Amino acid sequence: MESHSTEIRVRYKETDQMGIVYHSNYLVWMEVARVEYLRSRGHTYKQMESDGIFLPVKQVQVTYKTPARFDDIIIAEAYIDEYRKASIKIGYRMTRKSDGAEIAGGYTIHPFVNREGKILRFDEKLKAYFE
Amino acid sequence: MESHSTEIRVRYKETDQMGIVYHSNYLVWMEVARVEYLRSRGHTYKQMESDGIFLPVKQVQVTYKTPARFDDIIIAEAYIDEYRKASIKIGYRMTRKSDGAEIAGGYTIHPFVNREGKILRFDEKLKAYFE
Amino acid sequence: MESHSTEIRVRYKETDQMGIVYHSNYLVWMEVARVEYLRSRGHTYKQMESDGIFLPVKQVQVTYKTPARFDDIIIAEAYIDEYRKASIKIGYRMTRKSDGAEIAGGYTIHPFVNREGKILRFDEKLKAYFE
Amino acid sequence: MESHSTEIRVRYKETDQMGIVYHSNYLVWMEVARVEYLRSRGHTYKQMESDGIFLPVKQVQVTYKTPARFDDIIIAEAYIDEYRKASIKIGYRMTRKSDGAEIAGGYTIHPFVNREGKILRFDEKLKAYFE
Repeated sequence: MESHSTEIRVRYKETDQMGIVYHSNYLVWMEVARVEYLRSRGHTYKQMESDGIFLPVKQVQVTYKTPARFDDIIIAEAYIDEYRKASIKIGYRMTRKSDGAEIAGGYTIHPFVNREGKILRFDEKLKAYFE
Repeated sequence: MESHSTEIRVRYKETDQMGIVYHSNYLVWMEVARVEYLRSRGHTYKQMESDGIFLPVKQVQVTYKTPARFDDIIIAEAYIDEYRKASIKIGYRMTRKSDGAEIAGGYTIHPFVNREGKILRFDEKLKAYFE
Repeated sequence: MESHSTEIRVRYKETDQMGIVYHSNYLVWMEVARVEYLRSRGHTYKQMESDGIFLPVKQVQVTYKTPARFDDIIIAEAYIDEYRKASIKIGYRMTRKSDGAEIAGGYTIHPFVNREGKILRFDEKLKAYFE
Repeated sequence: MESHSTEIRVRYKETDQMGIVYHSNYLVWMEVARVEYLRSRGHTYKQMESDGIFLPVKQVQVTYKTPARFDDIIIAEAYIDEYRKASIKIGYRMTRKSDGAEIAGGYTIHPFVNREGKILRFDEKLKAYFE
């Protein structure tokens, strides 16, 4: 299974008054991991959009394990979990660099749509962005 | 089943370059719906925290249906989906006010923890906040 | 001087680990106040953009007075501070509803640009959106 | 004049429907630059807070020049602009790595406060964090 890891430093903005990272920020880190996964394959999300291919999110799930804190370095790993006919399921694992603690895991499911929002079949041309 | 609905106006900040709301913002709307659900029961999340009870998020899932757009009014409904021994599962339904379009649905699972992060049993005292 | 006030409930997401609202969120409240100012004049920012008129931000300044906290209701007032040849300066005052405490004040300066980013002269047609 | 530069990759989340970075995000990049400035001096903002010293924002100003876009790498430079009796003024310059375009400039003014919010005099002990 192909995967790619990116390091993300937790920003002060991402904390909340519980003193830990607010839960919605993990979705942004998953976005960063997804974009860097594509880059590691020699492609960019930016180019993909210029080519008229967009990846909105159809479903997201995150399970939170150890709270991430300000200034932690998070290792965010993205991998292709499943290719479907008209969508892709991407998996994520987030760990803390300093002690290897499991921070969170999750997935996102993305259809492929064109500029007008029409769903595209996941064909060889699309697959090439991920391999 | 008890539920409570709140209206949320989509902010420009919440859009992204696809011209629709960025997916992590729905988690914030779910937070708003959750806080207002508690208020509708005569309690506040703020008071709950002053009482030493915190509700971190253990798991979140969102399924996106119709994209929300800038200036839309979203009706965000929260309801208690399930009481567990040491956690609560809250469900959400988001619809667009103007045309009733289903925007998204999802859930969050929250343990109850004290100020030190120790998990609290979901007893009658805690249940009172939700009923 | 024409002005318009909007109420905004502070979200948990907007707090940080200092236990107060993170400072960048005030810019979003100022956006909300600006959008509602236009609506109070019978126009919408959304329609303005459909008409091909965009208001990027050229400069922003905020002075923070009393920290806003979770669940506070903020009264955010926007007013036209100055019409310039190719831009507009909008002023803001934010106060807490419960005790009238001054939360913050500031301004934004916006040029008017078309879809291609070309600067538009602030003529009568544009002025009509604000009066 | 001492300064320190940090590279920040623009996240998709940071864009808005104008197709450029939403203006409040620059304040977060300034936070990142400020935190990395301290680190470059051998200190961490995290340790500073553990030592009971907090740096809320008293005033912020940003002037926007060229719009930043998704996937741009921003070079965010922070420098000490002025030491005052009970506060510090930090300056920022943001440029795009690919072409050196000036993205934005600005400043933040921070008082030093203790855990209870009491203002601290800017003495030698505090100065040491910045030099």
